Amino acid sequence: MSELNGAQSLIRTLVDAGVEVCFANPGTSEMHFVAALDTVPEMRGVLALFEGVVTGAADGYARIADKPAATLLHLGPGLGNGLANLHNARRAHTPIVNVVGDHATYHKQYDAPLESDIEAVAGSLEGWVRRSEHTKDVGADAAAAVAAAQDAPGRVATLILPADASWGDGGETCAPIPPRVPQAVDATTVKDVAAVFGTGEPVALLIGGGACREEGLRAASRIAAATGAKTFVETFPSRLERGAGLPNIERLGYLAEQVAYQLDGIKHLVVAGTKAPVSFFAYPGKASDLTPESAQVHTLASVGQDVTRALNEVAELVAADIEPVLQEPSRPALPTGPLTPQNWVDVIGALLPENAIIADEANTSGLMLPAATAGAPRHDVLTLTGGAIGYGMPVATGAAVAGRDRPVLNLQSDGSALYTISALWTQARENLNVTTVLLNNRAYAILRLELQRVGAASGGPKANDLLDLSRPDMDFVKIAEGMGVPATRATTAEELAEQLQRAFAEPGPHLIDAAVPPLL
Amino acid sequence: MSELNGAQSLIRTLVDAGVEVCFANPGTSEMHFVAALDTVPEMRGVLALFEGVVTGAADGYARIADKPAATLLHLGPGLGNGLANLHNARRAHTPIVNVVGDHATYHKQYDAPLESDIEAVAGSLEGWVRRSEHTKDVGADAAAAVAAAQDAPGRVATLILPADASWGDGGETCAPIPPRVPQAVDATTVKDVAAVFGTGEPVALLIGGGACREEGLRAASRIAAATGAKTFVETFPSRLERGAGLPNIERLGYLAEQVAYQLDGIKHLVVAGTKAPVSFFAYPGKASDLTPESAQVHTLASVGQDVTRALNEVAELVAADIEPVLQEPSRPALPTGPLTPQNWVDVIGALLPENAIIADEANTSGLMLPAATAGAPRHDVLTLTGGAIGYGMPVATGAAVAGRDRPVLNLQSDGSALYTISALWTQARENLNVTTVLLNNRAYAILRLELQRVGAASGGPKANDLLDLSRPDMDFVKIAEGMGVPATRATTAEELAEQLQRAFAEPGPHLIDAAVPPLL
Repeated sequence: MSELNGAQSLIRTLVDAGVEVCFANPGTSEMHFVAALDTVPEMRGVLALFEGVVTGAADGYARIADKPAATLLHLGPGLGNGLANLHNARRAHTPIVNVVGDHATYHKQYDAPLESDIEAVAGSLEGWVRRSEHTKDVGADAAAAVAAAQDAPGRVATLILPADASWGDGGETCAPIPPRVPQAVDATTVKDVAAVFGTGEPVALLIGGGACREEGLRAASRIAAATGAKTFVETFPSRLERGAGLPNIERLGYLAEQVAYQLDGIKHLVVAGTKAPVSFFAYPGKASDLTPESAQVHTLASVGQDVTRALNEVAELVAADIEPVLQEPSRPALPTGPLTPQNWVDVIGALLPENAIIADEANTSGLMLPAATAGAPRHDVLTLTGGAIGYGMPVATGAAVAGRDRPVLNLQSDGSALYTISALWTQARENLNVTTVLLNNRAYAILRLELQRVGAASGGPKANDLLDLSRPDMDFVKIAEGMGVPATRATTAEELAEQLQRAFAEPGPHLIDAAVPPLL
Repeated sequence: MSELNGAQSLIRTLVDAGVEVCFANPGTSEMHFVAALDTVPEMRGVLALFEGVVTGAADGYARIADKPAATLLHLGPGLGNGLANLHNARRAHTPIVNVVGDHATYHKQYDAPLESDIEAVAGSLEGWVRRSEHTKDVGADAAAAVAAAQDAPGRVATLILPADASWGDGGETCAPIPPRVPQAVDATTVKDVAAVFGTGEPVALLIGGGACREEGLRAASRIAAATGAKTFVETFPSRLERGAGLPNIERLGYLAEQVAYQLDGIKHLVVAGTKAPVSFFAYPGKASDLTPESAQVHTLASVGQDVTRALNEVAELVAADIEPVLQEPSRPALPTGPLTPQNWVDVIGALLPENAIIADEANTSGLMLPAATAGAPRHDVLTLTGGAIGYGMPVATGAAVAGRDRPVLNLQSDGSALYTISALWTQARENLNVTTVLLNNRAYAILRLELQRVGAASGGPKANDLLDLSRPDMDFVKIAEGMGVPATRATTAEELAEQLQRAFAEPGPHLIDAAVPPLL
């Protein structure tokens, strides 16, 4: 019998498989896991005060590190609290290894207060779920979880760990299991799609997933330059590389009206690493499928296939001698005057540091952002893939853990901030280089827009009151300071610029409460 | 065809069935529900900034109002965010009517970003779940949901409302459906249990559920006075009536060691309205079943039966002429000096107002509380029935909505506060009479204790660091003020007393950041 208990074999196996960070919000059933952290020095434990921060941080970490972090969650309620950001991770195809502690196997029959159906909740994520009943299997199950999380295109893997499996003796570590790599696209499909670009009819190319990194963007840009195809990035990419020196490919819009404009007149839509566009929500009398009726959809690479290789192969066929079109360095001038929905993005574009990571939950406030930052130094943009708000602060936290010295900029709308506000405390605790620009428009502005768009009889005082965050106004400077993060308030473009420069220059987290009025 | 849309028929039906408050955190798919609020003036919409506040407030509301509130939640991620406090509500047998908006029926096939398995998540609550597919059925489904929520002993009912069922024309209201009342205990059981009290052997009576209100407490006290039985209230009652003029019945302890002491030597355990006690968690080498091996368990009334009537019937048989023992009015003297785990509870006992509601999430800091408040004016105590922390602030919020002018005292440990801290904003928005005493011991103190109790090799620096909330210290005065709640800091008993008196005297919410050192 080994000298390891189950928890020790688990953590050792995770580390051997490259999982080096565990975002944790533990309870009693996880105490042996917590104790075991001291026996495996390579594993870094990062504490959060709410599970939505834990899971969002794991999402942000993996998007930047290109490998999973572990989470440590406390039974069904802990998993439930983390579910919204796991939903976003599922939509991002982010690899995550959840470790959900449960009652000891023999204790479950007693229906103690925290007993609940963990499998049902975890199963809703459509990922990988396993219960590790026996101490000797915990290591092998952990290795399987890491592989499952990383099997292309990536998913949430949940390992349920009964307390007695964790504390029992006889744990066995397990060697890493190689994950399934992305499947190659067959040559016929590549040739058929290449032929679409040669028809002379209007074509749009929509790329997503792994194609939103430099190599895929360059291939897409070559195809566009050679064939005149319109090219778009999916609406909510997990990670989009942008900035000077990279192709600048427009994202498909959030609103159906935008997409109709972008895809107007096309006869062919080639999708690569994503799916044909659908409306985020349904609206009375409006179509859910956003592909124009005139257009035929061709799938070059489905989600989970090797989209970058397939794009390169198409580019070799249709654009053999063509170079990609790269964005020139270009920054907006620093604006002056009171903050507006238009000028704050210019401050960001003017000052974004080299190699930054943007965790973008600006929502309506951020509509003008892409143009303002297109020519900024190269950076990564992480987006709200699953639409479950409260993602920005935790994802920024995890991205900063993964990015080490890279500056992280969290563009955070006020309406979404309170779901996971305690991410600020973890940022302070870990001294992470996260600068939060809190876009304080004092409203659920997107819902004001949506109230009109769904055709609801708007304008009633009770309805509008439910979308109003100004009663009382939130003071994010005080909230941030209360959680140990230095904070300032900006009401003019000059103040925002000055405070942003200071925040980027000083190590550790900062928050700027930016009084940006609503766009609408 | 009626002139109501689905949402209007839903809200009208809810109001007709006595559901007058909707705690809401809506999104786009709920915009027609939001708009419909203006057509039904009797329905009060209360906005929260996070779904865990919504569901916890609905729990607290129903515990005090003795009828359900509705919640309004946004698809699967919204339900997920509310799941932990719904778990607590499930354990409390609290009636709640969740309305979870979903994509339009025809939109689900497109697997839009927010698409998820709502049924799977709702099903984990083991309550009532229905999807209302057709506008004309929405009213009837709503009436069924209200009845299901209130069917004895009470449960969480979840109505999934597709956007097109909500916005469609032809909604039909439905008359209230009478819920199933508690089943009476048969006469044989009453006689058999009464005989147990006559054996002369040591008996303990454990009461729970509805028996924790005045009538049940009086019956239990009469039985105890007549027979010498030890009498206990379940460890985590949903709502316990306490104070001067009521029987003072000790609660069963949280720790197995306490329960072993309390039940030592008994030969019979009579359970009424609850189950025989089990350990909250499993511990290596310790029993999960806390009934002493020497004792036989007799069930007078199972959960969902009419426990109060059964207790009265037993009392008529064994204690016909015996009066209950009532607590005399008695308050501790106001203590002086720096706050300690012992003296802060005396401040509470000395100053608790008439007719108060205590939402108790003091955890380890509150061990001494029951003794200090036993002789205070009559009050209700709401407890953490399901063990999912982050319950106190939302439950206090909902209790204050239900209690109208009753003062609500939220005793809140710091480790549990950050899960649902934005409840403070809702308290400010609604000007609720909630006084929060934030017991700031700067640690997950209960986990320090549990780390030792589970036998985990404690003392490692990484393990202890994960239970430490002092890096950085949280400033709850700033956090509260940032959310619009006036706040002060108390470091001495005198300061706590002075600030508490002021908070009780002024309308609206207050927070006192009380520097109470950890008990352990």
